[in-house]
Amino acid sequence: MQIAATAPLRDADDLSLSYTPGVARVCEAIAEDPTVADDYTWVSNTVAVVTDGSAVLGLGDIGPTASLPVMEGKAILFKQFGGVDAIPLALDERDPDAFVDTVVRLAPSFGGINLEDIAAPRCFEIERALQARVDIPVFHDDQHGTAIVTLAALLNALRLTGRDAADTKVVISGAGAAGVAIARILLASGIRKLAVVDRAGVVHPGRTDLTPIKAEIAFETSEWGRSGQLSDALDGADVFIGVSGGTVGESAIERMADDAIIFALANPTPEVHPDIARRHARVVATGRSDYPNQINNVLAFPGLFRGALDVRASKVTEGMKVAAARALSDLVGEALTESYVIPSPFDDRVAPAVATAVMAAARRDGVARR
Amino acid sequence: MQIAATAPLRDADDLSLSYTPGVARVCEAIAEDPTVADDYTWVSNTVAVVTDGSAVLGLGDIGPTASLPVMEGKAILFKQFGGVDAIPLALDERDPDAFVDTVVRLAPSFGGINLEDIAAPRCFEIERALQARVDIPVFHDDQHGTAIVTLAALLNALRLTGRDAADTKVVISGAGAAGVAIARILLASGIRKLAVVDRAGVVHPGRTDLTPIKAEIAFETSEWGRSGQLSDALDGADVFIGVSGGTVGESAIERMADDAIIFALANPTPEVHPDIARRHARVVATGRSDYPNQINNVLAFPGLFRGALDVRASKVTEGMKVAAARALSDLVGEALTESYVIPSPFDDRVAPAVATAVMAAARRDGVARR
Repeated sequence: MQIAATAPLRDADDLSLSYTPGVARVCEAIAEDPTVADDYTWVSNTVAVVTDGSAVLGLGDIGPTASLPVMEGKAILFKQFGGVDAIPLALDERDPDAFVDTVVRLAPSFGGINLEDIAAPRCFEIERALQARVDIPVFHDDQHGTAIVTLAALLNALRLTGRDAADTKVVISGAGAAGVAIARILLASGIRKLAVVDRAGVVHPGRTDLTPIKAEIAFETSEWGRSGQLSDALDGADVFIGVSGGTVGESAIERMADDAIIFALANPTPEVHPDIARRHARVVATGRSDYPNQINNVLAFPGLFRGALDVRASKVTEGMKVAAARALSDLVGEALTESYVIPSPFDDRVAPAVATAVMAAARRDGVARR
Repeated sequence: MQIAATAPLRDADDLSLSYTPGVARVCEAIAEDPTVADDYTWVSNTVAVVTDGSAVLGLGDIGPTASLPVMEGKAILFKQFGGVDAIPLALDERDPDAFVDTVVRLAPSFGGINLEDIAAPRCFEIERALQARVDIPVFHDDQHGTAIVTLAALLNALRLTGRDAADTKVVISGAGAAGVAIARILLASGIRKLAVVDRAGVVHPGRTDLTPIKAEIAFETSEWGRSGQLSDALDGADVFIGVSGGTVGESAIERMADDAIIFALANPTPEVHPDIARRHARVVATGRSDYPNQINNVLAFPGLFRGALDVRASKVTEGMKVAAARALSDLVGEALTESYVIPSPFDDRVAPAVATAVMAAARRDGVARR
């Protein structure tokens, strides 16, 4: 990737205008009224893609320098799909407080903060603390990008199989960044029978080994009342969502309900191979581009930030996330089939539809400033 | 300004290559050998343009947001003249230690740090502390960019007027970032009779009101032994260099030596109007593009960083700065006249000549890694 000029710089006159003395008048105008920085700088179209390199893809803790290719790739997707200028920033800092302090200091140069590949549970604390201190949108894509696209696909899978959200039994395998965020967006969208499973089994209020965030999830998902191991939770379940990187045996999924829905999202190796999943499920989705129904974050973050930036949103609300998911889901429309529950990343309608829905939701939720 | 892709992203195959799963192999390669990040990411061509907005142009302390147009303009000049990708970062942080901590954390994402528009004396402390903690070049352009271009022009003015550096009497008005850096590069280049003047008069060892950095300057410039006010120092001086933003009366400059040299660099209002200066001096330079001999930092920083990045320099040495100045000076060659002591910013030879000289000096000084 590279920087490019949006105005020509050919001679001394252009130089006087782009730099001194011309630029001084632009600075003075912003000093007088900071809101004009939106029009006079690139800030209102620019997002920092910030990581500490602690949980990069499935590679784990490879550090800031080795994480940079992911941040650059992300930045290119921001531009290509959302027209958003994004800057990769891999911070050499593991202390959550110092990490937050650093990004707060950087905030004047950006219109939004996309957190990326930060390990759980640190990522929850960082996102919460950071959003409390800056008035631009903070969005941890590994959580909410995945959650939005998962919800979008699930809404269509429920429609296809004739299910009602309130009665659908959902099991999520994985209680890291993605698992927690998926649980929350499903609860916000009317799913009530939900079990989240980590390595020690179903996260439920009776367990004494839970981190604070898992204790919250245990409380919020207590209605269904499941306990035991993953295979126990899957017994009779309607939906399996895997974001764990582990594996699930065929014996476990064959006990799911008829017309089951399986989203095996671990990448590059799904929790259960899609060919096996198809024997026992009506709808199968993965994180891979070589199978139908790819749950790909790129369907969400470019349009979400496009919309958030365009209305100068001060934060990303749950309403904006759910609106993004519904917009994605609606794009499938009457073309809905078992192998088409979510649009393609190269469907040109995606980012504009998500952006439009996000802008409307930001206004409804009172966080839009334009 | 904007971000642009350097590789196409047209279909699912491109997406798999630019982002997951393809990007994972790039990350793994860097995790195994961090030096390959130079080839696999944009880091080795990317410079952070970092400010706290405390001393922006002649506008003073207008804060980070209002400083952004200068940082963006700078970034565009980096690209246009040096092919360097530069990112504007205006930090909301005034404590020097916290500022340095922040930039240290950002360092993995950049090949160099250009400090900009930070008030003296904080700028000296920040540059020194930062360079001690990172192994990429740190360069405060308001100091060293100005110093390099000033030295380049002065070398030619001395040649034109038949002066020898060791015997030339130089007065610098202003003991801020630029004045201190000019004093140091002149001393490193053989000037021995030097007086630096601040608002209270000549900075000399007898004064009790000096900051630590001014005390150093007083010691380093003690050979000439001047004291008193600016007009006293100018009496019989060969060279006046103004970087103060103040004014100098005609009565003071008319007492300078024959064939005097006047660089009145305050912008947009020179310390003495060039038309008045011309009455008493043989060579006159300003910071303005509408008079001959413009001392413009853009002559130095793009080529200097181009060279430093290309050899993966770990720092910017005095030798690299002086080499940059000599390269600039040499470009004028036999075309030297009173109104042409420094090349034009639009002379295509400038950045390559500076870069080449800087690379050679980095190798001589043992700071090149490639």
